[in-house]
Amino acid sequence: METYLKRRSELIAQDRALRPDHAIAKALSADEQKASEILRSIRASEDRTVWNGKLPVKHIHGPQQMFPGMEFLTARDSIVNTKLFDILSKMPKGGLLHAHLDATVRADVLLRLALEQPAMHVRMPSASLNASTLKTVLPEFRALPKNQWTTTGSITDAAYTPNTWVPIQNARSNFGAELGGSSGFDRWVIDALMIDPSEAYGTHNTTAKIWEKFQSTFSVSDGLIRFVPIWTQYVREFLLSSVEDGISYVEPRILFWFKYMVGEDGEENVPHRVWFQIYDRVLNEVKEELEKQGRDDEVIGSKIIYSTLRNVTCEELEWYLEDCLALKQEFPHLVAGFDLVGHEDSLKPLIYYAEPLLKFVERQKELGVHIPFIFHAGETIGDGGVADMNLYDAILMGTQRIGHGFSIAKHPRLMEICREKGICIEICPISNEVLRLTGSMPMHPLPAILNHGVHVALCSDDPSVFGNMGLSFDFFQVFVASEVNTIATLREFVWDSIRFSSLDDTEKQYAFAALERRWTVFVNHVLDTYGESFGLESQ
Amino acid sequence: METYLKRRSELIAQDRALRPDHAIAKALSADEQKASEILRSIRASEDRTVWNGKLPVKHIHGPQQMFPGMEFLTARDSIVNTKLFDILSKMPKGGLLHAHLDATVRADVLLRLALEQPAMHVRMPSASLNASTLKTVLPEFRALPKNQWTTTGSITDAAYTPNTWVPIQNARSNFGAELGGSSGFDRWVIDALMIDPSEAYGTHNTTAKIWEKFQSTFSVSDGLIRFVPIWTQYVREFLLSSVEDGISYVEPRILFWFKYMVGEDGEENVPHRVWFQIYDRVLNEVKEELEKQGRDDEVIGSKIIYSTLRNVTCEELEWYLEDCLALKQEFPHLVAGFDLVGHEDSLKPLIYYAEPLLKFVERQKELGVHIPFIFHAGETIGDGGVADMNLYDAILMGTQRIGHGFSIAKHPRLMEICREKGICIEICPISNEVLRLTGSMPMHPLPAILNHGVHVALCSDDPSVFGNMGLSFDFFQVFVASEVNTIATLREFVWDSIRFSSLDDTEKQYAFAALERRWTVFVNHVLDTYGESFGLESQ
Repeated sequence: METYLKRRSELIAQDRALRPDHAIAKALSADEQKASEILRSIRASEDRTVWNGKLPVKHIHGPQQMFPGMEFLTARDSIVNTKLFDILSKMPKGGLLHAHLDATVRADVLLRLALEQPAMHVRMPSASLNASTLKTVLPEFRALPKNQWTTTGSITDAAYTPNTWVPIQNARSNFGAELGGSSGFDRWVIDALMIDPSEAYGTHNTTAKIWEKFQSTFSVSDGLIRFVPIWTQYVREFLLSSVEDGISYVEPRILFWFKYMVGEDGEENVPHRVWFQIYDRVLNEVKEELEKQGRDDEVIGSKIIYSTLRNVTCEELEWYLEDCLALKQEFPHLVAGFDLVGHEDSLKPLIYYAEPLLKFVERQKELGVHIPFIFHAGETIGDGGVADMNLYDAILMGTQRIGHGFSIAKHPRLMEICREKGICIEICPISNEVLRLTGSMPMHPLPAILNHGVHVALCSDDPSVFGNMGLSFDFFQVFVASEVNTIATLREFVWDSIRFSSLDDTEKQYAFAALERRWTVFVNHVLDTYGESFGLESQ
Repeated sequence: METYLKRRSELIAQDRALRPDHAIAKALSADEQKASEILRSIRASEDRTVWNGKLPVKHIHGPQQMFPGMEFLTARDSIVNTKLFDILSKMPKGGLLHAHLDATVRADVLLRLALEQPAMHVRMPSASLNASTLKTVLPEFRALPKNQWTTTGSITDAAYTPNTWVPIQNARSNFGAELGGSSGFDRWVIDALMIDPSEAYGTHNTTAKIWEKFQSTFSVSDGLIRFVPIWTQYVREFLLSSVEDGISYVEPRILFWFKYMVGEDGEENVPHRVWFQIYDRVLNEVKEELEKQGRDDEVIGSKIIYSTLRNVTCEELEWYLEDCLALKQEFPHLVAGFDLVGHEDSLKPLIYYAEPLLKFVERQKELGVHIPFIFHAGETIGDGGVADMNLYDAILMGTQRIGHGFSIAKHPRLMEICREKGICIEICPISNEVLRLTGSMPMHPLPAILNHGVHVALCSDDPSVFGNMGLSFDFFQVFVASEVNTIATLREFVWDSIRFSSLDDTEKQYAFAALERRWTVFVNHVLDTYGESFGLESQ
């Protein structure tokens, strides 16, 4: 029996030897080990008191069974009241490597920013809005030039002419009482900007269908965000709210598919280089403010992944690639990489763009710049379909990281290459679940990817649409869904998010040092706050 | 670009090189290649006409989006009307290596068998049955000794005393008109024997909760099946219906947890060796009948996996292990292996039984018999929990195959061992989905397991509970959920189900020869029936 147990331990160790957190797990300090025990005790305790031990909650379809890692949109209210979430929200997170800028600021905050702009107008394509059409008739926003501003009007008035612009403040204050008045207006807009549980787990419970709703949120938010005064505040809010959740570096994908932003004058004429100038200025302002507060360690910076949509033609793509090259030359410190975004299952595969993309690599050599690909690939449950096949092309074209890479667990050779070449996978746990690639977090392939030795950064993807602001929620869902996870796993995710970022070596060294200081504070906080009640009982 | 495409093909080939169907894919006959094209064309065509192209069907929660490999209980009616299902139902399947005997015969057939037995009685623990309690008050069945038979009574009568036995025929004919009369009785019993979509995808939509319903079906069916006259016919029906679906060899798990079966006299006194005698006799009768009809190739035989429940103590297990050894000595041709069954997440792990199980291996050497372990392991979405850890123990104890092995995709070293040692995984696609380990077939880890070079046999597990009779439904769900699957994949599953069965080498050679003959007929059937309409248009 002793021999058997020895062989058993060896086999388990062999099986887990490739894990990214393998080395750090053996190098934890005594305090980290104790904090890890506390985290495990709290997880085990809340398994009983919050999840499995709890009676079903009322859900759209009647009673809903609770379990750790369950559907996020149903679980969110329970999560925020847990001790584990309290701890994780105080954990320094390192970098956020996969987020679409235009889905990073809370919907209610965006609406508030819009309401401050007299230029902002709203219209809808229908003559009447009522309780049954509230979910299907979507608002369209646009900042108008001053000579087109209107001062009156109600969108819910019987006399409303479809597609007539109404000032947003008027539309809000005159919103029909039977639809809830001004708070009904807010609900209408926010519902159009977010996915709710009745959609994700009911009416739109497939990847194809929920993508329809997902995409529609961007068509609504575009008119609000792509307006210089709002965009400027939006970027600031994104950076500050990230810092508040312990994120010190962000590498958002910004969509440059629209060639112009609407300027303060209401004209759609602000080119991409001005977007960069604004971003750069806001970033520096935020850094300075935080440094003045003595919070230098909390903000490392930001770089931008230039993105366009995977629906363009090859010819159009060439324009974007040249645009990206020009921006890299003007803002070498800001351009981190290039990506194509959009629904992989239905839009064009990477192989379709192989020629211009391979030419782009040559053009970089000519110009002496380096713009790595940081491609979305494998965001699909398909096996051998176009989205799954994108993984081969992303890797062959030399992608620096892989966005999502959800289907890579099916590909032994590709995981081997990622392990050998240090290609990190940007895993977006809550996004995958809400967009129905996985039924819940315990069904997610993340453990398979980790056990194959592939490095992973946890990411939020589109937090304003899913409600997973910051990174605490994604860390939470991952941590509760596996008994293999320890504080070493969390630490590895955090360090990998800097290690595989687009920061240069000097910046990384600075970031690691800052992280180490903050991590010590965090570990001490866990020991001080929960040590007595949780650490000791497990000894 | 040419170089790129060459490197791309090489990478894809490398990534798929370990697949079990890799060799056969290169050795297909011209006819098989053509049949494969037909299958792929039909799949692509039905993708549009049956699944993605179709409007949502009405489902328990309102409209339900359709897609290939979607939830089986909702999709079943659509599946049976497809051309692909028609083809797969005619395909020779080889062996069925994972099925629990007491869940292999259609619920309505079992009820019919029971209604023929005057000894069969029914009772319920409640005084009243009404529309709202029909799902929670379960019938209990038992064949009684003649001196306890009753002749009257109604289970739905206001005067019914809880737990009073009523003859099944009386209970049926006197079943309250407001509950549907005799057909209402049939529905009540069949609902208690099966999982319906409102349970799997609604009220019981988690692995823990659906297992409650799943286990209750066995408590209901036990009283019907564990009665010699019914059991005899049940075994016959299982064998014949398997043959009708193209299954030529079956290796069911039979639960010997109950030490006695109820005999024809209504007394619970028939020991395990008599179960084996009956099984052996029925098997021989069925073989003879089919041979007389010239259908020798359709029936190869059957062996039994001795099983008990993973809730017994170590001491109790020793009794079962000795019982199994005695049966192996008396029926060496029938005992295929030993297993422990039941809900892995909540019952005892294999490591708990390590001592008696390791002793069992020694006992076999003493007695000169060989009874391999064929363990359930990893039937879970847990990561590092007891059920997931069972995989280490199953493999270390030398399991011949792994029942389910659902979580093995997370374990690179264990997949490597399975590949090297030829440990086949008994994958039960529909069972996994109905029992909520996976949301749908495209989310299932099967492609990952195959791509890692692990051999797989597709199995039905508990078809009478899930409604996936035979193996055609499971093959269907797997085939439509991956674009990598070809006729070579199907062929490999079929051949592996014989290769990794407990047949001896001579029996296997015979089985392969019979299979080859039937496969040729099958391929010709596909070409003859669908060649003109599907094969040509894709050329």
